[in-house]
Amino acid sequence: MRRQRGWARTATGRTFRDKLLEASRRNESLLCVGLDPDPSLLKGTPVATFLQAIIDATRDLVCAYKPNLAFYEALGEAGWAALRRTLAAIPAHIPVIADAKRGDIGNTAAAYARAVFEVLGCDAMTVNPYGGEDAVEPFLEYEEKGVFVWCRSSNPSAGDFQDLVVEHEGERRPLWQVVALRAREWNRSGNVGLVVGATYPAHLAEARALCPGMPILVPGVGAQEGSLRDAVQAGLDAAGGGLIISASRSVLYAARDAEYALGARAAALHLRDLINRYRQEENVPAEA
Amino acid sequence: MRRQRGWARTATGRTFRDKLLEASRRNESLLCVGLDPDPSLLKGTPVATFLQAIIDATRDLVCAYKPNLAFYEALGEAGWAALRRTLAAIPAHIPVIADAKRGDIGNTAAAYARAVFEVLGCDAMTVNPYGGEDAVEPFLEYEEKGVFVWCRSSNPSAGDFQDLVVEHEGERRPLWQVVALRAREWNRSGNVGLVVGATYPAHLAEARALCPGMPILVPGVGAQEGSLRDAVQAGLDAAGGGLIISASRSVLYAARDAEYALGARAAALHLRDLINRYRQEENVPAEA
Repeated sequence: MRRQRGWARTATGRTFRDKLLEASRRNESLLCVGLDPDPSLLKGTPVATFLQAIIDATRDLVCAYKPNLAFYEALGEAGWAALRRTLAAIPAHIPVIADAKRGDIGNTAAAYARAVFEVLGCDAMTVNPYGGEDAVEPFLEYEEKGVFVWCRSSNPSAGDFQDLVVEHEGERRPLWQVVALRAREWNRSGNVGLVVGATYPAHLAEARALCPGMPILVPGVGAQEGSLRDAVQAGLDAAGGGLIISASRSVLYAARDAEYALGARAAALHLRDLINRYRQEENVPAEA
Repeated sequence: MRRQRGWARTATGRTFRDKLLEASRRNESLLCVGLDPDPSLLKGTPVATFLQAIIDATRDLVCAYKPNLAFYEALGEAGWAALRRTLAAIPAHIPVIADAKRGDIGNTAAAYARAVFEVLGCDAMTVNPYGGEDAVEPFLEYEEKGVFVWCRSSNPSAGDFQDLVVEHEGERRPLWQVVALRAREWNRSGNVGLVVGATYPAHLAEARALCPGMPILVPGVGAQEGSLRDAVQAGLDAAGGGLIISASRSVLYAARDAEYALGARAAALHLRDLINRYRQEENVPAEA
């Protein structure tokens, strides 16, 4: 039982999925705050100090936190130390999704899984599907963790490969939908989710139709209320949940002054409540 | 000129491509040694000590070194310190390819590029194409660095997505060939290469035909001489080069005892010379 040892954060025996549902209920929230430190915006505040204050200011408002490993790696070894301190500052009952987009074959994938799930002790991570099933398998083996498969992104060139039409079991579909269908097959232990960008709500609706019971991580939600409404209503599952709506810069840097924690709290509260309003609209049948 | 500052290794003004050609000529070698530390095989030797000895024993035999970041990340912060020490131990004239398979959108990709090219000071890295052109662009902007696009892998499930047939400019091709063609378009600054596995030499021949002038990184070459011959002969460019044949475990752990450095040297020498023999066979027309 190699993987039962040494986890920094989840020795509780609860799965990522349980933790997510619990935190989501407790904080009445589908909001995830992305912890992406940008020292150029911190005015000298140390990264770990800044993020600790953000966490303290938002811990009753979120269903999860999502540190993006790139921003820590870009700070070198000091970044890794800041990441460790940040992870330690997150309350144990709130799940952590490492945004890592890792993907590689064989024992390399196993090493990445070990790094994120065992060394960092994160509850979930994002992975890249390009290597196919056996490249994702080392992540899936951590049945109590969450594995979010990068499916459809919202950048301008996302369609370069993700939208190429392929034949899959007799039907012609964009590649990203085949990735979603394969992710559903990989979900044998109930530990798989999707990453789908918020820009095109139609993609969220299609992903939800293909994977009715899987959590969908929706990164990059900004302050535009219109697109947020569409994204939420397109992506909700039958129980009115199943979404993890992630905002990073619009929360972290809402107030670029000494009141940054208060600013982040106000932004997170606003987003959480907006998301909840759109959930309710969706659940109440529209009057004719 | 943000990116002109702070490089740990390449303040020489030479591009990755120049360094690669120079090291390849100087050491008469297309062999790259993968620096993938596995503490369970080191019998207590510290990772950085072990790798320093491997580098000292093989530095006159290789065209490049390729640390795989996963194996350092799996060791936590101590792993990053070992990586720094290892990079510092590599002679400045030998290029370093960080095997990272990074891929993400927008400012996340830029942060990964900064981490590998500026913080670590590597000369080249592997990237994942799934996010499309604008997700690769932040890496390409480092014109003097090398960017190897993960194209066709050799794991059993590689075909899950990479072999799906798509239509591209009126022709039906497997996805990985479209990735290769796009990578060729991205090669405006002459800094792009491909990663293609060695298992199926036909893939190498096709990749070479699609991208005649681009370097191809061929990972995972073991001790099987037959497949090595086919891989070399399928992938050489018109000048009898253009390949970076990478071996990791078969060199690092060739002798699992106190003589590990000698064992690694013998294994690297054998591989380098075999590759050169196959190059020559290819260049001499077979007699009828």
